[in-house]
Amino acid sequence: MASEESLRQALADKLSAVEAQGNNVRALKASKASKSDIDAAIQALNALKLEKTTLEKDLQATVTGSGGDGSVSREEFRQLVSNTLERRLFYIPSFKIYRGVAGLYDYGPPGCAVKSNVLSFWRQHFVLEENMLEVDCPCVTPEVVLKASGHVDKFTDLMVKDEKTGTCYRADHLLKDFCSEKLQKDLSITAKEAAELKHILAVLDELSAEELGAKLKEYGITAPDTKNPLSDPYPFNLMFQTSIGPSGLSSGFMRPETAQGIFVNFKDLYYYNGNKLPFAAAQIGQAFRNEISPRQGLLRVREFTLAEIEHFVDPEDKSHPNFSEVAKLEFLMFPREEQMSGQSAKKLCLGDAVAGGIVNNETLGYFIGRVYLFLTRLGINEDRLRFRQHLANEMAHYACDCWDAEIECSYGWIECVGIADRSAFDLRAHSEKSGVPLVAAEKFSEPREVEELIITPVKKELGLVFKGQQKNVVEALEAMKEEEALEMKANLETKGEMEFYVCTLEKNVSIKKSMVAISKQKKKVHQRVFTPSVIEPSFGIGRIIYCLYEHSFYTRPSKAGDDQLNVFRFPPLVAPIKCTVFPLVQNEKYEKVAKDISKSLTVAGISHKIDITGTSIGKRYARTDELGVPFAVTVDSTTSVTIRERDSKDQIRVNVEDAASVVKDVSEGLRTWTEVWASFPHHSSASADD
Amino acid sequence: MASEESLRQALADKLSAVEAQGNNVRALKASKASKSDIDAAIQALNALKLEKTTLEKDLQATVTGSGGDGSVSREEFRQLVSNTLERRLFYIPSFKIYRGVAGLYDYGPPGCAVKSNVLSFWRQHFVLEENMLEVDCPCVTPEVVLKASGHVDKFTDLMVKDEKTGTCYRADHLLKDFCSEKLQKDLSITAKEAAELKHILAVLDELSAEELGAKLKEYGITAPDTKNPLSDPYPFNLMFQTSIGPSGLSSGFMRPETAQGIFVNFKDLYYYNGNKLPFAAAQIGQAFRNEISPRQGLLRVREFTLAEIEHFVDPEDKSHPNFSEVAKLEFLMFPREEQMSGQSAKKLCLGDAVAGGIVNNETLGYFIGRVYLFLTRLGINEDRLRFRQHLANEMAHYACDCWDAEIECSYGWIECVGIADRSAFDLRAHSEKSGVPLVAAEKFSEPREVEELIITPVKKELGLVFKGQQKNVVEALEAMKEEEALEMKANLETKGEMEFYVCTLEKNVSIKKSMVAISKQKKKVHQRVFTPSVIEPSFGIGRIIYCLYEHSFYTRPSKAGDDQLNVFRFPPLVAPIKCTVFPLVQNEKYEKVAKDISKSLTVAGISHKIDITGTSIGKRYARTDELGVPFAVTVDSTTSVTIRERDSKDQIRVNVEDAASVVKDVSEGLRTWTEVWASFPHHSSASADD
Repeated sequence: MASEESLRQALADKLSAVEAQGNNVRALKASKASKSDIDAAIQALNALKLEKTTLEKDLQATVTGSGGDGSVSREEFRQLVSNTLERRLFYIPSFKIYRGVAGLYDYGPPGCAVKSNVLSFWRQHFVLEENMLEVDCPCVTPEVVLKASGHVDKFTDLMVKDEKTGTCYRADHLLKDFCSEKLQKDLSITAKEAAELKHILAVLDELSAEELGAKLKEYGITAPDTKNPLSDPYPFNLMFQTSIGPSGLSSGFMRPETAQGIFVNFKDLYYYNGNKLPFAAAQIGQAFRNEISPRQGLLRVREFTLAEIEHFVDPEDKSHPNFSEVAKLEFLMFPREEQMSGQSAKKLCLGDAVAGGIVNNETLGYFIGRVYLFLTRLGINEDRLRFRQHLANEMAHYACDCWDAEIECSYGWIECVGIADRSAFDLRAHSEKSGVPLVAAEKFSEPREVEELIITPVKKELGLVFKGQQKNVVEALEAMKEEEALEMKANLETKGEMEFYVCTLEKNVSIKKSMVAISKQKKKVHQRVFTPSVIEPSFGIGRIIYCLYEHSFYTRPSKAGDDQLNVFRFPPLVAPIKCTVFPLVQNEKYEKVAKDISKSLTVAGISHKIDITGTSIGKRYARTDELGVPFAVTVDSTTSVTIRERDSKDQIRVNVEDAASVVKDVSEGLRTWTEVWASFPHHSSASADD
Repeated sequence: MASEESLRQALADKLSAVEAQGNNVRALKASKASKSDIDAAIQALNALKLEKTTLEKDLQATVTGSGGDGSVSREEFRQLVSNTLERRLFYIPSFKIYRGVAGLYDYGPPGCAVKSNVLSFWRQHFVLEENMLEVDCPCVTPEVVLKASGHVDKFTDLMVKDEKTGTCYRADHLLKDFCSEKLQKDLSITAKEAAELKHILAVLDELSAEELGAKLKEYGITAPDTKNPLSDPYPFNLMFQTSIGPSGLSSGFMRPETAQGIFVNFKDLYYYNGNKLPFAAAQIGQAFRNEISPRQGLLRVREFTLAEIEHFVDPEDKSHPNFSEVAKLEFLMFPREEQMSGQSAKKLCLGDAVAGGIVNNETLGYFIGRVYLFLTRLGINEDRLRFRQHLANEMAHYACDCWDAEIECSYGWIECVGIADRSAFDLRAHSEKSGVPLVAAEKFSEPREVEELIITPVKKELGLVFKGQQKNVVEALEAMKEEEALEMKANLETKGEMEFYVCTLEKNVSIKKSMVAISKQKKKVHQRVFTPSVIEPSFGIGRIIYCLYEHSFYTRPSKAGDDQLNVFRFPPLVAPIKCTVFPLVQNEKYEKVAKDISKSLTVAGISHKIDITGTSIGKRYARTDELGVPFAVTVDSTTSVTIRERDSKDQIRVNVEDAASVVKDVSEGLRTWTEVWASFPHHSSASADD
């Protein structure tokens, strides 16, 4: 299909051609031209109109993401998936009988089982395999901690209020909606206008309150529900606030992320690890964000489960001993440069990306690789998973490099895991605020002689000249890096004076030789003390699960062909229930066999469901397919049973006493279905197919 | 050792005797008696004083719980356990570098692993084995839900304030401290005074604000820190309050329990279960209580993990199909009657307790049995576990019966699991408040004829007489139970008039025959619609874990005998790490073997730690014993290794390639250590013993 841009151009051209031909027809009619000439011109006009309509349809299909060829649109697909999820209680809008609360969802039984499986695998894949130190900290967090982390001051979204009703909206969402709708529904806008709207969408996150306000005004955007005018955008802090203890004097918040609990424990964890770097700590837990107006269903919620890793490393050595284990992986990466030059994500070899400097360091690369393995093993489609590098202006000022695992779903490409090298920012912030040094030490095997730079501002001299600004100048002098200081030393020695920029005064001052002593001294040191860097992979578990639902969902016709049946192709690892057991017909002997197999499955720790309702076998398969149950045991004799695999619908015949262990093996990945298929007799049944 | 009461009596007698003899001595001296007489009297006085001192020591030992024979006191034992727990990071006071927040604790790595193991086992033992419907609801809860549940109005503790500084205290705690301290430290109080103090401690939970206030005044209790006077006690709501959404208009709370999330989903869950009763839903999650002044370390905290089950059942049939599986269990039960008559808990057979009506019904009994199995399998000492029935005045008015699993630890007997038959209270409350009927239906196989009671108040007549109070009278008439209504019918027919008590008016009114029609009608019904009863086992996971720590802890002398080594005798099921692997000496070949075994253990999903530091093998064993690691693999050759069991310190010799699978088997309970011990060669090593 042609690109949106070329379609817009073609449509604009076609509209001009229609208009021109219309004029032409009118001119022919006015000049009383021959009927055959007029007819021919009208025919040409109609042909052009037809072409225009086709172009419009193509463009519509392109911008809304629907195939235009009968395949369902993104919205229709999403509706189909959510209907199934909600009907089968994968999730439930929380407090539904009280009409719910926006942005809060419950996991119902199958959803809860999927979540528990995802978290178990996360623990196995990261905590256990990587020997991480898992901790579990409270959600209630005192203000001082989140003041240090910057959340009290900066964890905000820009909000506008309906000036008459007081209803609150996220300012960027209103602008985004306006741009997206214009792009999708207004086929008459020019390619240039479309490009501007797209540019706004691209830089939406970086607009200041003033810029956002200006754009809202420029486009005349009003409150969506009432069309009332809107206030100027202003920041709203997204943390749920509360009060700790009975006095009402101690302010606290529900944590917006789990990471801070790890940072404040750094000293103890470092000690626990034998005072050695690198090591990683991990935490799974609830996090809270009081979203202004939550949308996008399960993707933007007010309470969610995060799984976070803080890998502490020497900033001078970010190599990773196991990097070779992931270096050969190839997957979609979307480096900064490709984004800036308008290209798309491309398949790269991880080892090359690290070696070529695209990814900042080995440890960051190692986690990117591990995240890729984690997500694809869960069942995320690797063609719809990309690692997108943050643009320079997207990253926090302290971050070295940052990559998001983005998963494509009906809402577009969604950030599901953030993998950031946050340098020493967090530990430094808490060291400063708490007064407790959060540092590591590298002990030297023998003492080393080092040259130490000593900068001694002569306060008396500085005070005479700079008076009230003396403190700013002293601090700026002391904060000089080695290179800068040595340059100053040289300059002062040769010229006796030099210009020096003081950030906090935002101006140059003149420094004289008498004002500062700069020297290098030799010193024996036994260790190097430093603040570790931290590399942070942070997983939005709910988002991953939602994308997994979409990637796992498909429909297939029923046997009669009169109906579409829903299936979730969950791998056994995440399937909420591994197996259903049912007697083919209602019959005491078969029921007993089914119950015996169920007991063996329970002992083996395999979650399963026994279904002794008299429903037809086809309906029972359909029910279990819709829950994503990978295997079904059907009892059709007292000596042997059939085991059916969900997606192929293939069936094997197994002795009753072996059934549970075969199901256990394929459920836990000890054997694949292909292996099992090769070693047991096959079974074909007319009724098994629908 | 003698009872506290008899010691107090003996001490009081002895004090009188000392005083009398003192007087005697003084009298002898005054009367210038012979030196030998005086000396004999003094000797007798000294003997009495010595006996008094011994009695004081005995009494002191009895009231503080220390053995008096060199064994450690409860407080010393607790200190020893908590020091070990805190030093090895089982837990960490949250936000320690900011001087912490009372009542908030982190689980450090081993604590987090223990918790995760306890929760996994809970899921296996309850959710999986009982086919429960697990859900996962948010912590943030809108006010309307907790208003319906009664928490907004009644979830309070009584608080007093220091009248000068404003510091808050729990009123009952101050009274409790006063009584306990008096009992423990004031050896001079009479047995009668002691009995009164003990009575106060026993009824502490049931004292009203006024009664508590009166007692505080009576004993002259002041603020502990300042000795300032205290305010009268008043209720303080224990929920953390917050605001949902940006408007500030929508009040919410952090849930104080997880149960409400299940109740509000009853309708969907009932449907999910095929509209069949009984079924159970379960939830594991955080709960929050803004304690006034948290004490008792890990036992009374402001945020904690609950695991709750709501088993919905037909109120007319509370039998349980699997009750026979637990009926033969025998354990300590403490029925109401034994508590009232001052007896102690006694070993009962669960089946007898249910059959004898001590436990209200089979389902309640079934869960008591399952909880007993759960706790003892975790490693709770069954001699320090009792099921205590709530006294009638302890239970909520709607509850049928309630049993607490109490575990004895250094803080006394602690409620760790509550198992309550809450009747239909919760579902009714949410039905009423939400307007959504939360009911179940029993469909009859064929329609049944039933007699239905019809009460029709004649509003016109009632209005004439009762005017503004008409509504109260109408409601009271309609709310009559069948028996009451039939009695009224009979009365009105014979006497034409009767007195009738209207609760909401708090008075009797006179009802005449013309004011109400009461009749019975026959009706065909196809189903019975009713509000299910709910039986709720609710587990305080943190409390269970803390008691488990205490029950698992012991010390043993080091080999040299100069030191006491700490050990946690965790069963493999809950041990934070199942196995440590270390080379006997630092050596490349041994290290490689150790790493290979470690890899196999990872693949098998067995959490373990590899220790290649050069520390002595004895120290390494001591370290791992202190974490409760049940098995240690020591590599002392390249072909075979030893596996040591923590408590017996016995070692077997196993081929390198079998090591991981042997550890897996004993860790996962597929084989016991006794079985393994019988099938492998034994190894004895001088160094293994310390």
